[in-house]
Amino acid sequence: MNGAQALIRTLVGAGVDVCFANPGTSEMHFVAALDDVPAMRGVLTLFEGVATGAADGYARMAGRPAATLLHLGPGLGNGLANLHNARRGGAPVVNVVGDHARSHKRLDAPLESDVDAIAGTVSGWLRRSLSPADVAADAAEAVAAAARGAIATLLLPADVSWADGAAPADPLPVRPAPQVASSVVAAVAGALASGEPAVLFLGGDVVASEEGLLAAGQVAAGTGARLMAETFPARMVRGAGLPDLDKLPYPPPLALASLAGTVHLVLAGATAPVHFFGYPETPGTPVPEGCTVHVLSAPGEDGVAAVRALADLAAPDAEPALLEAARPELPSGELTPRSMAAVIGALLPERAIVVDEALTSGVGLAELTSGAPRHDWLALTGGAIGGGQPMAVGAAVACPDRPVLAVQADGSAMYTIQALWTQAREGLDVTTVLCDNGSYAILEHELRNVGARSDGERAGRLLDLGGPGLDFVALATGMGVPATRATTAEELADQLRAALAEPGPHLIDAVLPGRR
Amino acid sequence: MNGAQALIRTLVGAGVDVCFANPGTSEMHFVAALDDVPAMRGVLTLFEGVATGAADGYARMAGRPAATLLHLGPGLGNGLANLHNARRGGAPVVNVVGDHARSHKRLDAPLESDVDAIAGTVSGWLRRSLSPADVAADAAEAVAAAARGAIATLLLPADVSWADGAAPADPLPVRPAPQVASSVVAAVAGALASGEPAVLFLGGDVVASEEGLLAAGQVAAGTGARLMAETFPARMVRGAGLPDLDKLPYPPPLALASLAGTVHLVLAGATAPVHFFGYPETPGTPVPEGCTVHVLSAPGEDGVAAVRALADLAAPDAEPALLEAARPELPSGELTPRSMAAVIGALLPERAIVVDEALTSGVGLAELTSGAPRHDWLALTGGAIGGGQPMAVGAAVACPDRPVLAVQADGSAMYTIQALWTQAREGLDVTTVLCDNGSYAILEHELRNVGARSDGERAGRLLDLGGPGLDFVALATGMGVPATRATTAEELADQLRAALAEPGPHLIDAVLPGRR
Repeated sequence: MNGAQALIRTLVGAGVDVCFANPGTSEMHFVAALDDVPAMRGVLTLFEGVATGAADGYARMAGRPAATLLHLGPGLGNGLANLHNARRGGAPVVNVVGDHARSHKRLDAPLESDVDAIAGTVSGWLRRSLSPADVAADAAEAVAAAARGAIATLLLPADVSWADGAAPADPLPVRPAPQVASSVVAAVAGALASGEPAVLFLGGDVVASEEGLLAAGQVAAGTGARLMAETFPARMVRGAGLPDLDKLPYPPPLALASLAGTVHLVLAGATAPVHFFGYPETPGTPVPEGCTVHVLSAPGEDGVAAVRALADLAAPDAEPALLEAARPELPSGELTPRSMAAVIGALLPERAIVVDEALTSGVGLAELTSGAPRHDWLALTGGAIGGGQPMAVGAAVACPDRPVLAVQADGSAMYTIQALWTQAREGLDVTTVLCDNGSYAILEHELRNVGARSDGERAGRLLDLGGPGLDFVALATGMGVPATRATTAEELADQLRAALAEPGPHLIDAVLPGRR
Repeated sequence: MNGAQALIRTLVGAGVDVCFANPGTSEMHFVAALDDVPAMRGVLTLFEGVATGAADGYARMAGRPAATLLHLGPGLGNGLANLHNARRGGAPVVNVVGDHARSHKRLDAPLESDVDAIAGTVSGWLRRSLSPADVAADAAEAVAAAARGAIATLLLPADVSWADGAAPADPLPVRPAPQVASSVVAAVAGALASGEPAVLFLGGDVVASEEGLLAAGQVAAGTGARLMAETFPARMVRGAGLPDLDKLPYPPPLALASLAGTVHLVLAGATAPVHFFGYPETPGTPVPEGCTVHVLSAPGEDGVAAVRALADLAAPDAEPALLEAARPELPSGELTPRSMAAVIGALLPERAIVVDEALTSGVGLAELTSGAPRHDWLALTGGAIGGGQPMAVGAAVACPDRPVLAVQADGSAMYTIQALWTQAREGLDVTTVLCDNGSYAILEHELRNVGARSDGERAGRLLDLGGPGLDFVALATGMGVPATRATTAEELADQLRAALAEPGPHLIDAVLPGRR
């Protein structure tokens, strides 16, 4: 058995049975070995950023890692931005990065680069397999390391892949998440009992779990603490029957206002909030001066159990306030971000997975879907745009029986537009609503926010996607995804209803002000 | 004056007056400053790999660096593959990578990553500007460092960009390329005088220069040495009136055969050849055992002067054998890689810049264009696919009065297909012949070459671009580039003639066997 065969068998044995792949010459034995191990599903992408973003979306929904297959340093580089998002969201990923054969490494061939350094910037675990006898054990360790919410990267020399003498390794035991000490829970309960203004700031595992959200709602009901979620959770369960949960706003003035007066900020699964960027004359964080930050649970700990324990201690008899089932009415007339959000809120199917890279076009989206049937919401955790379409691929592979709705800004879509092809090839049930405003609208805002004084044409040209306008219907159909264009709320509703009713991928170009 | 304004003025003063940009929030003051410094041309790309590949192509043709404007670690990551190609080809590039404001850096905001480590993997020069008072001097040093054939990366904190107190810096003197010692030239002349089989192996500056090629031809005529070029030169001058110059073949068996029996391998501007990849049972380099490798000039040295001196010493009276003007006849019938190459050879315009990422579809292309009118040829130096379309952007920006012909493989095209939009927006005179064979054909070859024994369906699916087939006419028109489809040699000739006759970008989908 060669190294590649043992590696794939080990991955499958450890529960990693999907591989998002962009192979090259150094990965050909891995590719060949897919025919020996049918339990591993190989999913081809046309660009590495699609593979890594898909692995991120897969992990968020499956709760376990997929593998990626990447080609040396440049291939890993192409996948780096979405690995950054996965790292920021704590999504487990196992990267297999092919490298030159051991004998070839020192020859400084054209594709040679410092792949170790590139990998080190995103990986919590990193190893180069140096012999076919070791590669399976290395792979088992990679999966175990990833399971703790990390990116694990295995550098695989081509000859370790092709040489015989390998054998599969058993999976390593996965340790459950550490429990929060009861003294921590008691201290937080004491702070909440003070009656001083408090915010329970939720993220990570807590917002991904109905149990976590219901326990948090109980704490809020019993103590008067406000509930708030981190701005970009990796996965958030939402909808009727759950507590109402505002997310911390993105713009610093709104974030500052939303936490003003808070005396106790209790973190559960989230880290303390900081603004996405620094701005002139603005503090770096929305946490008020004098506010005490309490860590109930840190990312990676069992936050759901911690919040449950807090509820039992601080609010044993309280009943959480829950959202009633409610949908907006279907709007009519001009398509705007808000009427687009209303259409989505009116039609969002049960058990949908919403992939949200709407950016500025997403105004109103959270509000107008909050009472919809139960669904999951995946946000852009690390701010590296181009995560949405790939995440939709991964979510759909992880959950083939659930509809995926990608709400996707136009500028960001172009970073990884190749994801549409994989959606078509794999027949994934992804409906993309493409928010087509013809500009990097978020940067037009930011140009003003950072105090840059320019209304000049030359600056404007760098933020404008017109001249020529992008035809997303042509781009989607050119990659095999059926596509339509909506310029009114009625058209969007009709097209969204039709797309959701039919299996497989669809794209709806939602033409918004700015483009019209 | 703020840091961004001083930075841009310094760049322009040092001759860097084009910036291929993908800005984000942290670069908004740089963008605003473009309105203050009209001499800097900002060129928007929709993906960072387009920006960096364009800077590579620009540098190869302009002989000086362009700037890129990238957004933190993920933006640099997206540009890494084409920076790898630029580094491998010795193309100068000045990266300006925006980063968090100094006060924001320690807060570990969502977009924080180890951008220094990412930059270090490709940069010959790397610095973080720590104050507005320093940024202009840092920029001047970056340009000087790049001028020596390196990638220079300036990390620019947002507040260094927006704060006042900066002033432009004067350009630093650029030192000319070092001269090769006459003792080295004499030693090489002595080796050639032995009469033993010798190869003059040319690359870098030597093949980019008519003078270098003519001097090399004189050496060959006078000493009997064979001429050969490196497999993937950054820039090669070609056509009638120059010496005939075979490139070292890519496949190891052909490379080994082409150098078999060589006793003296003289490097001029090139490094000693190694195979792109290691293969089972194959040596890592085509240089025969016992062959002496002589370094006449290393990359970065003045190779043209060295070859000129060698010609004067070793072959003072010899006349180089030069290619006669010759074009293939226009073929008819089925479109194949060879008939496609013949059409290109028949119609290649004078002073064209050919960007070659044809890969397996490029068989016959070099041969059938060798007697065409004088042209430049840009190859994929570092093996990171997806360089072609972006390089075409950069070459066209550098040489607006010359036609650019991109011969582009389909699978590779999809890595940076967004380049077409920038070609349309800037009205660049780029004609793309898209080699549409519906597969990663090079990997189908490589699967066999590496001895991987698989003819299985699952492996094949990872090398096949069908299901759904990519519609490059739709993709191009969706980004504003007029496009047509050719299925016969006659159609290709008609469409190529029309595209070349009309300014601005065009794409011709050349449907090859495999796709039909």
